Amino acid sequence: MSKPIYVLNGPNLNLLGQREPHIYGAESLEDVRARCERRAAALGQAVVFRQTNHEGELIDWVQEARREGLGLVINPAGYGHTSVALLDALKSVGIPIVECHLSNPHEREPFRHHSYVSLAAQGVICGLGAAGYELAIEAVCGLAAKS
Amino acid sequence: MSKPIYVLNGPNLNLLGQREPHIYGAESLEDVRARCERRAAALGQAVVFRQTNHEGELIDWVQEARREGLGLVINPAGYGHTSVALLDALKSVGIPIVECHLSNPHEREPFRHHSYVSLAAQGVICGLGAAGYELAIEAVCGLAAKS
Amino acid sequence: MSKPIYVLNGPNLNLLGQREPHIYGAESLEDVRARCERRAAALGQAVVFRQTNHEGELIDWVQEARREGLGLVINPAGYGHTSVALLDALKSVGIPIVECHLSNPHEREPFRHHSYVSLAAQGVICGLGAAGYELAIEAVCGLAAKS
Amino acid sequence: MSKPIYVLNGPNLNLLGQREPHIYGAESLEDVRARCERRAAALGQAVVFRQTNHEGELIDWVQEARREGLGLVINPAGYGHTSVALLDALKSVGIPIVECHLSNPHEREPFRHHSYVSLAAQGVICGLGAAGYELAIEAVCGLAAKS
Amino acid sequence: MSKPIYVLNGPNLNLLGQREPHIYGAESLEDVRARCERRAAALGQAVVFRQTNHEGELIDWVQEARREGLGLVINPAGYGHTSVALLDALKSVGIPIVECHLSNPHEREPFRHHSYVSLAAQGVICGLGAAGYELAIEAVCGLAAKS
Amino acid sequence: MSKPIYVLNGPNLNLLGQREPHIYGAESLEDVRARCERRAAALGQAVVFRQTNHEGELIDWVQEARREGLGLVINPAGYGHTSVALLDALKSVGIPIVECHLSNPHEREPFRHHSYVSLAAQGVICGLGAAGYELAIEAVCGLAAKS
Amino acid sequence: MSKPIYVLNGPNLNLLGQREPHIYGAESLEDVRARCERRAAALGQAVVFRQTNHEGELIDWVQEARREGLGLVINPAGYGHTSVALLDALKSVGIPIVECHLSNPHEREPFRHHSYVSLAAQGVICGLGAAGYELAIEAVCGLAAKS
Amino acid sequence: MSKPIYVLNGPNLNLLGQREPHIYGAESLEDVRARCERRAAALGQAVVFRQTNHEGELIDWVQEARREGLGLVINPAGYGHTSVALLDALKSVGIPIVECHLSNPHEREPFRHHSYVSLAAQGVICGLGAAGYELAIEAVCGLAAKS
Amino acid sequence: MSKPIYVLNGPNLNLLGQREPHIYGAESLEDVRARCERRAAALGQAVVFRQTNHEGELIDWVQEARREGLGLVINPAGYGHTSVALLDALKSVGIPIVECHLSNPHEREPFRHHSYVSLAAQGVICGLGAAGYELAIEAVCGLAAKS
Amino acid sequence: MSKPIYVLNGPNLNLLGQREPHIYGAESLEDVRARCERRAAALGQAVVFRQTNHEGELIDWVQEARREGLGLVINPAGYGHTSVALLDALKSVGIPIVECHLSNPHEREPFRHHSYVSLAAQGVICGLGAAGYELAIEAVCGLAAKS
Amino acid sequence: MSKPIYVLNGPNLNLLGQREPHIYGAESLEDVRARCERRAAALGQAVVFRQTNHEGELIDWVQEARREGLGLVINPAGYGHTSVALLDALKSVGIPIVECHLSNPHEREPFRHHSYVSLAAQGVICGLGAAGYELAIEAVCGLAAKS
Amino acid sequence: MSKPIYVLNGPNLNLLGQREPHIYGAESLEDVRARCERRAAALGQAVVFRQTNHEGELIDWVQEARREGLGLVINPAGYGHTSVALLDALKSVGIPIVECHLSNPHEREPFRHHSYVSLAAQGVICGLGAAGYELAIEAVCGLAAKS
Repeated sequence: MSKPIYVLNGPNLNLLGQREPHIYGAESLEDVRARCERRAAALGQAVVFRQTNHEGELIDWVQEARREGLGLVINPAGYGHTSVALLDALKSVGIPIVECHLSNPHEREPFRHHSYVSLAAQGVICGLGAAGYELAIEAVCGLAAKS
Repeated sequence: MSKPIYVLNGPNLNLLGQREPHIYGAESLEDVRARCERRAAALGQAVVFRQTNHEGELIDWVQEARREGLGLVINPAGYGHTSVALLDALKSVGIPIVECHLSNPHEREPFRHHSYVSLAAQGVICGLGAAGYELAIEAVCGLAAKS
Repeated sequence: MSKPIYVLNGPNLNLLGQREPHIYGAESLEDVRARCERRAAALGQAVVFRQTNHEGELIDWVQEARREGLGLVINPAGYGHTSVALLDALKSVGIPIVECHLSNPHEREPFRHHSYVSLAAQGVICGLGAAGYELAIEAVCGLAAKS
Repeated sequence: MSKPIYVLNGPNLNLLGQREPHIYGAESLEDVRARCERRAAALGQAVVFRQTNHEGELIDWVQEARREGLGLVINPAGYGHTSVALLDALKSVGIPIVECHLSNPHEREPFRHHSYVSLAAQGVICGLGAAGYELAIEAVCGLAAKS
Repeated sequence: MSKPIYVLNGPNLNLLGQREPHIYGAESLEDVRARCERRAAALGQAVVFRQTNHEGELIDWVQEARREGLGLVINPAGYGHTSVALLDALKSVGIPIVECHLSNPHEREPFRHHSYVSLAAQGVICGLGAAGYELAIEAVCGLAAKS
Repeated sequence: MSKPIYVLNGPNLNLLGQREPHIYGAESLEDVRARCERRAAALGQAVVFRQTNHEGELIDWVQEARREGLGLVINPAGYGHTSVALLDALKSVGIPIVECHLSNPHEREPFRHHSYVSLAAQGVICGLGAAGYELAIEAVCGLAAKS
Repeated sequence: MSKPIYVLNGPNLNLLGQREPHIYGAESLEDVRARCERRAAALGQAVVFRQTNHEGELIDWVQEARREGLGLVINPAGYGHTSVALLDALKSVGIPIVECHLSNPHEREPFRHHSYVSLAAQGVICGLGAAGYELAIEAVCGLAAKS
Repeated sequence: MSKPIYVLNGPNLNLLGQREPHIYGAESLEDVRARCERRAAALGQAVVFRQTNHEGELIDWVQEARREGLGLVINPAGYGHTSVALLDALKSVGIPIVECHLSNPHEREPFRHHSYVSLAAQGVICGLGAAGYELAIEAVCGLAAKS
Repeated sequence: MSKPIYVLNGPNLNLLGQREPHIYGAESLEDVRARCERRAAALGQAVVFRQTNHEGELIDWVQEARREGLGLVINPAGYGHTSVALLDALKSVGIPIVECHLSNPHEREPFRHHSYVSLAAQGVICGLGAAGYELAIEAVCGLAAKS
Repeated sequence: MSKPIYVLNGPNLNLLGQREPHIYGAESLEDVRARCERRAAALGQAVVFRQTNHEGELIDWVQEARREGLGLVINPAGYGHTSVALLDALKSVGIPIVECHLSNPHEREPFRHHSYVSLAAQGVICGLGAAGYELAIEAVCGLAAKS
Repeated sequence: MSKPIYVLNGPNLNLLGQREPHIYGAESLEDVRARCERRAAALGQAVVFRQTNHEGELIDWVQEARREGLGLVINPAGYGHTSVALLDALKSVGIPIVECHLSNPHEREPFRHHSYVSLAAQGVICGLGAAGYELAIEAVCGLAAKS
Repeated sequence: MSKPIYVLNGPNLNLLGQREPHIYGAESLEDVRARCERRAAALGQAVVFRQTNHEGELIDWVQEARREGLGLVINPAGYGHTSVALLDALKSVGIPIVECHLSNPHEREPFRHHSYVSLAAQGVICGLGAAGYELAIEAVCGLAAKS
């Protein structure tokens, strides 16, 4: 059976739907998980969906996806702007990576304009809310099919 | 009948498939148009698809989309990095905008890391080649349905 | 008979009164034209009043004003922040130039704080809305009378 | 009777007409005062016209204008580039402010390109010499009439 | 019964009293805890006092304070200068936050002059050693009483 | 009898309660003076409380505090961001200094993020409104007792 | 018969000989055309010589040179400093490119020190006036002969 | 018996030999451990050799080395460029520290040119691959013998 | 009789000999005045020697020196680094100016490396303590004799 | 008889043809000398052709060219990016100077984008390999004939 | 017989042991030479050990090492921070290079944090005093054995 | 007998009187030597006066002055702005150093505003032409007498 798509979520995303809904939308992270599973199922794929506030755990999981995943969708949240360690992990995975942000960071504070993750991801999708995760699933499946 | 989705392409995209295929892919702009029309049709929408090398013409078309379009997908190419005039046009449209780039500008030269267009677009999709246009069509339709 | 005052308007000013009225005011560009013609007439001068979204056309008109104008009022809009080519055109005209902005760019985003046009204009008037055009007409007439 | 327009002049402007006339023109500050009074009278307004070399006195006068003025024309000279304290004073006045410079600072040294005063003024007029004061009087009267 | 004040301490503060006493003082973290409890008790409040070297754990605790705390005193130590993830957690808490530093970071290396935590905290107290914690407790109680 | 605590206030603070109350609060400077005197009295100390819009007068007073004060609380307002002269005065006083700001400058414009005064003060308290002055009085008394 | 050398001239070069002759020299653009044709003829080559004020038209012509030219001499004037779109066009041509400037931009304002065109051109010749065009013709012929 | 040398390895170094071998070499981390133990044994010392992806755990271990180690060799990997918290931990250890990198960061991306760890380490060795660890062991033993 | 040499001293210099003697030396400002008068007398000149903490008063005195002085020695202290207004005053004087600093600002904090006064002074002398004033007197006399 | 053209070559150019031939080409410096002599002879001029690794010697030779040369072609190699001393020497020569680089520095590392020599040279030719020297000879002869 | 290892020392290193011993240590350069020869001998290699204050001579010697050396240890001292010419020489040598500094430049002034030499060296060793030279000898021998 | 004062002159100063006399004055370097010798003789001191275009030679001489000089006056010319190696030499001399410039570098190009030499000199004198050398001689004698 095919390897699953990893969907990894960084710090504070467990508060989705409660934290600053004018920026991040009203859906909870469970709603996002359901969307991802539905879209992946429609494409014949399974999903491993996780969230953590810990940078090191995020890196552990990226290394796990390297061994056991078909592709990787990652919303690094705050760590995307600051973590060279996460970038180094992503550069080693050898499977398709799509970075996904709920809001458009370019419309926010300057320190959100740079993403280390964008240096390792093939694709970046941002500003499209929870729907962006679905597009990222489709994109990563398409990339995996080609590679 | 519903208004169409505008898909506007900036300078040098008429050379798609011929220019630096290791960066921009092997599909021609006609292939991209076909993809967009197919995806839009599946969502019950029509597409107005154009390309120009002229900044002023791109602005004229954005103003036309403001009056006659349901949503806007724009690949501004080189003008995205330099045109405040284009940004001003986009800020006035009042319809959903998704910016789309074939390659991931964050992996290229520093002067490609900034986009004025990202300051006006709800969503940004990049690095996913021609497939990114399809995702952008879907995203803009979703945004238009909600607004 | 005396040469006319050129009043040249850059990109998106054709949307005046419709686009972001909290920033640019509710008068249309036709209203501004009427104001300019009235003020100029009171000073015994005629006005050539034009708008374009095209940088190259703006440069063509500046060169025309060089041959056929008494003075030049220019609202370069977005091109003022980015166009060295427009600056070069203005540096060659040899007639009085007054730059005019409806809003005060210094209160807006940092990329609006610099104007290439200011390097070639004798005078700059900004933040005074449509009334600023009238003051600019008066100023340019005064400068032309002295030179 | 109506409140007067305050016209406040910063450091070294008492030397007007003597100091670097190729930049600042040959009229004295008394000549400028006369122009301002004439123009204001034509518009049915009185003028309070003052000059000081003291940053603190300039702030005191801004606070006085806040209580007793209809509008404020200010040529902050050198303090415009460095004084956050002056900016804070101006942000509290609640009457129309027009900043006025005799020369065009954008054509001079880089440290003259930034003005804290521009962050609090509705309008800015520069490079038009003593005539610019008259336009500023007219502009501030127009703004006061509207507010 | 009232919710407690959370007092959260970041990396290396467990070494307080041993590490660089000329900068951080001779009191241990237990001494600081005692001070905080005493001051809070005098104001009729309880304290939850913790320390961790792990950024993710700090974020977990901030989220806990969001649900179960009356207010938050945080000494982020090194993470204050680098953690956007911590900032995002703090921006969601909805209870009063006071940032507290033992030393005055502005007198130290430039990379200590910027604090992401200061972008989310209502108040900042620094350079006052262990006594600063007591003032922070008082401040956060005052803010909580008002909200 | 013991020397008094100097509490010095910089430009525009005389407008406290009237100017931008959403930022600076509704209490007047007289209210703040009363708070300071009460808190100091409770600690057995007297207070010298002053305000000026003049940078030079502020420096004169700092020099006076050097000779006649027990400690110094200073809210430099706008001069804190620009005045090297004030810094030089503060570096010579040899008594405890606590800098105090009503609002949190780190949440405001970038030019308010740097304070020369912070380079000479032992402690900094900001964002806590008028209550911050009381904490500063307590802090400066504590520091004076130790030195 | 051999393909021609394209010699493309950017904005304001139509004013050559009239505009700022102390910088750009006294020869007209027609004189430069004659020089180019003479030098090319001596080397057995034809020349296509054009000028435009429009960035989009310059890009159209570069694309034409890509299909129909042997080599390309380009004086981008003001667009060289600002146009990423022009750079993208040049990067696709696959024929030798020599950039040519009449004056030496390094002796002028800082915004003239950077050229996007230099990132795509094999050779750059500047500061040698109209004679520089002749050297560029010879250089581009030499490069074309080798490729 | 003598205290051991701590050799601490940061994020992604567990992938050594598998990840980007053109940059990091073909030896595994186990091979590096063997080298370190051999070299230390030859110098009469024991080695504690560990790796983690977690910043907080790295800090915990540095604090452990402070109590129980003779010296410290640290390859902070990605955390070296971003972690002020790690720097603070290292500044407190009071035993010799040598920083060691497999590759030469100065030949890589700019964000790898700065290392917070270098501000606390006596010595830095980089670009010498696994052999660099051996030299670092020798260096740290030499420093420990002198102190 | 000849006009006097003005020797103007900026903020905090009245504390000379008491403030940070390791930087500024142990002589008082009265000692410096005596040195200046002695040296000037030996050269047949009188001296006007003053100190103020007020930026505005310093500017007033510069304007006075413009009318009544033979030359100007100025130690602007902290205002030298921030005051454009002082620069503007100095640019108008038309008599020789020598800037004098007791310490060498280039060995101190970066914000002391720039001096606006240096943009208007013919000569600069720094780091030579009180003796530097004597050299400045000699230099300004020499310059005045030549002009 | 006419004075010769000086052709001066900076550090490492003695390795031409051996060092990084993909950047600098396969011709040796002797080949370049032969080209220069041939071209100069065709124009009726002699050539003094030299190379040195020593900055001071390069300056000595520039001073010699000042006395004994008709014009100067200089390839400063690495010293062009760093030597203010070389710039000062060139500014004094009073004969035509053309700077010549084998490769196009604008396509290389950022520290090669700035040239002090360009601030003193009339013309700059780069990226054209050994052929560029010939064009430089022709250019310098043309300039010398005009002056 | 095998080629020797070149050990090249830049400006002021002849003063080793006399100049700032708290930074550079108490051993003389002759002591360092002895260490290098001993270590190299143990590895079966000879050493060419030299020092110069002249940048050009250092480049001459690097070129000599290119022809006649097995590997190169270089302590460029002050030239490492400023010399592009030295970098260019090093990039051509084709033998292993290890850069060596006695002190750790990262703990010193900012202008010592950048090294051009690090862009061409395989390895860098710093902060380990004279012992660092021995490690560099071992490292360069190891690299030479592998190549 | 007393040790002499060294007066060392950097590149291009041998052209004094011939090169750009509007900046550097009309006196030759021989004239300056005579002034220095006269002034030193009046103070009972001898002078060693030299000039070189070679950075390495300047460093050699600084080291000589360290052994055999009473004090050092240095006009580093262009090397002052770029030479860390020269700074390192000066930091070791242990005798008084006064830096001397004929012109005022702060009024010239930005790259002349920074001087490495100022980081090691006790005093700096600039903008006073040849007379500045005399003041420097006097200053260095005064400093030597005190040390």
